[in-house]
Amino acid sequence: MKRVCIIGVGSIGSLYAAHLARVAEVWAFVRRPEHARALNEQGLRVTGTHTFHVKLRASNDPGEMPQFDLGIVACKATQTEEAVRPVAHLFRNGAVLSSQNGLGSEEVIAALTKGYVMRGTTFMSGTRHSDTHVQLELDTETWMGPFEPSGTPYALVQEAAGLINAAGLKAVALEDARPAQWSKLIFNASVNSVAALTELVHSFHYAEEKKFDDLGHLLHDLIEEGKRVAAGLGVKLHDDPWEMNKIGARTDHPPSMLYDIRHKLPTEVDFLGGAIAREAHRAGLAAPLHTALYRLIRGKEASWSYRGKKDEAAG
Amino acid sequence: MKRVCIIGVGSIGSLYAAHLARVAEVWAFVRRPEHARALNEQGLRVTGTHTFHVKLRASNDPGEMPQFDLGIVACKATQTEEAVRPVAHLFRNGAVLSSQNGLGSEEVIAALTKGYVMRGTTFMSGTRHSDTHVQLELDTETWMGPFEPSGTPYALVQEAAGLINAAGLKAVALEDARPAQWSKLIFNASVNSVAALTELVHSFHYAEEKKFDDLGHLLHDLIEEGKRVAAGLGVKLHDDPWEMNKIGARTDHPPSMLYDIRHKLPTEVDFLGGAIAREAHRAGLAAPLHTALYRLIRGKEASWSYRGKKDEAAG
Repeated sequence: MKRVCIIGVGSIGSLYAAHLARVAEVWAFVRRPEHARALNEQGLRVTGTHTFHVKLRASNDPGEMPQFDLGIVACKATQTEEAVRPVAHLFRNGAVLSSQNGLGSEEVIAALTKGYVMRGTTFMSGTRHSDTHVQLELDTETWMGPFEPSGTPYALVQEAAGLINAAGLKAVALEDARPAQWSKLIFNASVNSVAALTELVHSFHYAEEKKFDDLGHLLHDLIEEGKRVAAGLGVKLHDDPWEMNKIGARTDHPPSMLYDIRHKLPTEVDFLGGAIAREAHRAGLAAPLHTALYRLIRGKEASWSYRGKKDEAAG
Repeated sequence: MKRVCIIGVGSIGSLYAAHLARVAEVWAFVRRPEHARALNEQGLRVTGTHTFHVKLRASNDPGEMPQFDLGIVACKATQTEEAVRPVAHLFRNGAVLSSQNGLGSEEVIAALTKGYVMRGTTFMSGTRHSDTHVQLELDTETWMGPFEPSGTPYALVQEAAGLINAAGLKAVALEDARPAQWSKLIFNASVNSVAALTELVHSFHYAEEKKFDDLGHLLHDLIEEGKRVAAGLGVKLHDDPWEMNKIGARTDHPPSMLYDIRHKLPTEVDFLGGAIAREAHRAGLAAPLHTALYRLIRGKEASWSYRGKKDEAAG
């Protein structure tokens, strides 16, 4: 794997791009011409856990881009279609890794590229300070495996994981990535849905289970429901999402959907709680809580544009 | 019933006070001295469906107030204890009607007055324009009946209802007011919880049931769950809350908890969805959806004062 394309160059995409540019020819496919120009002229600077500067190529024009051995999609799940479509023909001999939140992006990518796709779940985190500067915060693993319907050979997954490791990041190849993906999905869906609706950061409230009205009970119930859906679909979990929640609840980290809600941006709920709700519905399994929260978040999104006939409280 | 005290003189309390002052000696018990002064000096003006002006007495000092035949509590359910305690001794020979949202205020009143209490549920609505001006919007019924544990004679309920009717409002005496109270409770709890979390007014979304993620499915599920709890407690409903929701969903009315959420005021959730959740829990009945939404709203209230260690989204 000599040539890599990064699709979606936010904080996670910038981290992959910078690290991989040290061991491969990396192209960043971006939307804004000034983003491409800045990267081509100034390269990309990494600070935080790792500190270095690299040159790489960037473009907003698929016409000037070559065929790739590996693509990594790191945009928001809601933007996959829009981000991948223009470059979907550049992976005829390659494979594309989805390193995105939740469930469902792989289907979208596979439908567009008609080639090999890999399921990815990353625990890395970083902050994007500018188009040309990203800070690595948590240098944690990317778990990856074949996306089953595309028949991706496991050797290809190993090769891609090897490249990411050689670049100085952490990747683990798995013959079946669903247990890892579902562990993070259940954790992420539960925490993000609650954050979107309460507007609380990932605070101690999420693990508090003393009084009847404590929020920890709800997190526990959401996670148990998610586990029952995974079990019903035949997926054995890699890690316990409740343990992940207990650790997270000490951090006060703002979940990504809280950021979206605060900025009135479309959330990734379709790929998180909505994905659990839909997968359960499809398989005839019960997921009343994830389904309820999914519908509430959709309602919340609708409230941003709906104003109605009158708008202040009466009696 | 010659002498009436109104406790909690917002829009509903002002409507009772003004109408009843036409047929009885009415005292408004208020918190702010300037509210008392304004009412004593200017009286109370009603516009809207009814148009008139009356004189009445008002005070913020229980020491200057007489014994009453009837009390009507119309404050927010969250303020019952604080509002009733100072005048609780003024109903030794009288009865007190709770005309408040939800379930649970009667218990609080009975514990304070140790006398006769009545369950009330009102569908009136109005807008309070100032301390001395209230607009009557919906001239709809107040349903009332004995609060069973206080052993209130039904004749007393009839007498109070007769007085309210004589005053030009609509009241219906019921031997058992729980079917009416629970109908409105289930409707109110479902609509208010969804409004608090989505920040949508009572819009068409609440009755929409086409797509999987439509909010109407959730309202339907909440209402069905509420009905199962009522049935489990042996309460037969007076009206179908789903029909009430379908009518409300055409109004774009902002539910009271939406007002509270927008103004970061403590909501009445303890007396609405929280009351259904607690009553179900006490009786060993399942109410997962009302319980989940109750905990989310508690979390939302907690978010107003919680700031945590860091406060902007990372990667």
